[in-house]
Amino acid sequence: MREISAIEAWKQKYPESIVLASSVDAAGLPNIISLGWSMCTSFIPPMVAISIGKTRYSHKLISEGKEFVFAYPGEDMEKEVLYCGTHSGQDVNKFKELGLIAIPAKRVRPPLIDRCIVNMECKVVGQLDTGDHTIFVGEIVASYISDEKKRRLYNLGNEKFGGL
Amino acid sequence: MREISAIEAWKQKYPESIVLASSVDAAGLPNIISLGWSMCTSFIPPMVAISIGKTRYSHKLISEGKEFVFAYPGEDMEKEVLYCGTHSGQDVNKFKELGLIAIPAKRVRPPLIDRCIVNMECKVVGQLDTGDHTIFVGEIVASYISDEKKRRLYNLGNEKFGGL
Repeated sequence: MREISAIEAWKQKYPESIVLASSVDAAGLPNIISLGWSMCTSFIPPMVAISIGKTRYSHKLISEGKEFVFAYPGEDMEKEVLYCGTHSGQDVNKFKELGLIAIPAKRVRPPLIDRCIVNMECKVVGQLDTGDHTIFVGEIVASYISDEKKRRLYNLGNEKFGGL
Repeated sequence: MREISAIEAWKQKYPESIVLASSVDAAGLPNIISLGWSMCTSFIPPMVAISIGKTRYSHKLISEGKEFVFAYPGEDMEKEVLYCGTHSGQDVNKFKELGLIAIPAKRVRPPLIDRCIVNMECKVVGQLDTGDHTIFVGEIVASYISDEKKRRLYNLGNEKFGGL
């Protein structure tokens, strides 16, 4: 065993799951972000946690709107995940650019994301400042599964992505 | 797309990463817990977040001691992960029962866990109540990598575990 930096140690963390999160601005215009950092965090009631960089546009939207939709992209969505992770919703409408349908949700303002395996409507019930990111905790108030069976997309490390 | 319960939706979350976390009681006796719910949550400074059920003994130990060691078990550690996930440190000394060496850490009281791919010493810098769990955020103050190359262990769903 030898000592290394945390960032070097994190190179051993792959495969890492990837999720998409949608949010809306005050006018209702939707945005999507790709996230490598998420986890479940309660069974009763069901909750998920996502960690978002403080400089990201979705950080602002979710801080203000207190709602998001949490979705598992399919293994066929590498292009969409990379686009959402490298463009800002301040500059582009990602749904429009990617040809993804923003499906109206039932209990929150941000939309469900077309083509994802699972979509979960979340209301922010807690948030915590953590270094250069913020953890947003969402209580899941509705969930949906796609009719199409497919595998989730993972970050395999070394800029490779795929299903498992 | 059809509506389902969140718990049903979570069946699509596998493979899910597994980590081990060590902690110590007031007398310095070490414990280990297996966790399916963890994520990174800051680059600068490096931080990880873990979600622990409120009834778990490690919840008490980390709440009180404010330190933990976060480790990635190897794919050869399924037996150890299952044992740590199904026994309480209130009843047994898991290190001793499993023949795992509790390697002294440098900057925290909980020990490094033998045979893991990566060990990270963490000081709790934040915690958040989330339903039936608590999120503990640890700033990583030292990290180590094993000399032995091996893959991480994942929960593949349906009570199956393995490397990827």
